Amino acid sequence: MQLIDALNAHREISDILIAYCRHLDRMNLSALAALFTSDCMVRFGDDPALVANGREALEHSMARMWRWKRTSHQLSNIRISFGSQREAKAESYVHAWHEYQDGHSATIYGSYFDSLIKGPDGWKIEQRRMEMNGADAGFKVAIPPAPRMAPPAGWRAPTHLDQTSS
Amino acid sequence: MQLIDALNAHREISDILIAYCRHLDRMNLSALAALFTSDCMVRFGDDPALVANGREALEHSMARMWRWKRTSHQLSNIRISFGSQREAKAESYVHAWHEYQDGHSATIYGSYFDSLIKGPDGWKIEQRRMEMNGADAGFKVAIPPAPRMAPPAGWRAPTHLDQTSS
Amino acid sequence: MQLIDALNAHREISDILIAYCRHLDRMNLSALAALFTSDCMVRFGDDPALVANGREALEHSMARMWRWKRTSHQLSNIRISFGSQREAKAESYVHAWHEYQDGHSATIYGSYFDSLIKGPDGWKIEQRRMEMNGADAGFKVAIPPAPRMAPPAGWRAPTHLDQTSS
Repeated sequence: MQLIDALNAHREISDILIAYCRHLDRMNLSALAALFTSDCMVRFGDDPALVANGREALEHSMARMWRWKRTSHQLSNIRISFGSQREAKAESYVHAWHEYQDGHSATIYGSYFDSLIKGPDGWKIEQRRMEMNGADAGFKVAIPPAPRMAPPAGWRAPTHLDQTSS
Repeated sequence: MQLIDALNAHREISDILIAYCRHLDRMNLSALAALFTSDCMVRFGDDPALVANGREALEHSMARMWRWKRTSHQLSNIRISFGSQREAKAESYVHAWHEYQDGHSATIYGSYFDSLIKGPDGWKIEQRRMEMNGADAGFKVAIPPAPRMAPPAGWRAPTHLDQTSS
Repeated sequence: MQLIDALNAHREISDILIAYCRHLDRMNLSALAALFTSDCMVRFGDDPALVANGREALEHSMARMWRWKRTSHQLSNIRISFGSQREAKAESYVHAWHEYQDGHSATIYGSYFDSLIKGPDGWKIEQRRMEMNGADAGFKVAIPPAPRMAPPAGWRAPTHLDQTSS
């Protein structure tokens, strides 16, 4: 893969991941579903309501997001690697803010793990799964936790760093 | 437009949008204003205090941000398209945190919509307007809400997703 | 430096900065330390616990992050400039969320200031220091504040912008 082609594909794929956020926050679900392959597999968690096989099922499933009054999905930490000129993996962080109808909010710090393929209509997301680093108390959806290594045996927490000097 | 030129212009424009955030958080308003054309049109909302026509008016207007003790503007979801080699449109999300003088805070999840042109001094922002996806209770400024599609007739909210399993 | 090389180096360096966040949130400290030169100098603040000289000391020092139950580091506003083909400076914003063992949280809006060099193993971080734009009440670590210009003499705060119209 030529360097210029890799840089351009990086840009194109980033644009797809960003478009997902924008379409979701506007609840333009047909535009959102068009970012995926017709036979996509999407799994945000183990609950059947969080799984969709195929573009049509995905569009139908994402209607659940209307239970929120408003949302805002900020993508960052995008990392893309290529298996070939037509196959890519992407990992990204999503800081997602959701507002319940009553005005209180739910925030998640999550990650998307995507496989993409390039066809005649450009890059499409073929598989998406999700993990979460954490969330505030308002967010209740069962997204699988990201793995985190454990401290070595005998490690002891420093105590002075989190105290305001006074 | 050559691919390499488009990729480079994408980088240059991203740098301008990022510089805006950095200059704003440091309240370096002359550096901030220099990112705009001399005849720029900036409209964060309908309130006359949120509108500035021209670079000088913008620098003067942005002095309102000194009412905050501190701010931090995180840009994401940057999307850029080109009308020509010298004309571009950019959309970006801004997660903006503001601290009142008394220590409580105000957070907005907003978007910037920009038109840029390239002149002898490089890319400059010619027009900027703003929308917001949402905000916390501390944020009171009247930014126009982003449009969001309505659910289809008969849609019913799922109820089990937002309950902690126990 | 050829344009294509600069664009590619921008991508490579962004990937390093992003990998830092990912490794940190997973507490993969050997992978994190491998992003730095063997003689790196890292200074998050004046407290000796926040300073590390050398890759080994850094890996040891970052073990302090195990005191958090979970973390999520979102990078944005990445700006990179080149001194030569093998020397670069990077500035980035980090929105870092931390959860205490008891479930309450600490959020900082910080910035990283990095010097990088390119050797036989690619780009490595040689120096890193940190500033913060702000933080919520839960975050107590003594990160140096970012500089912010003062208002001109006689400036008076507008009063109507932060009041809900009713």
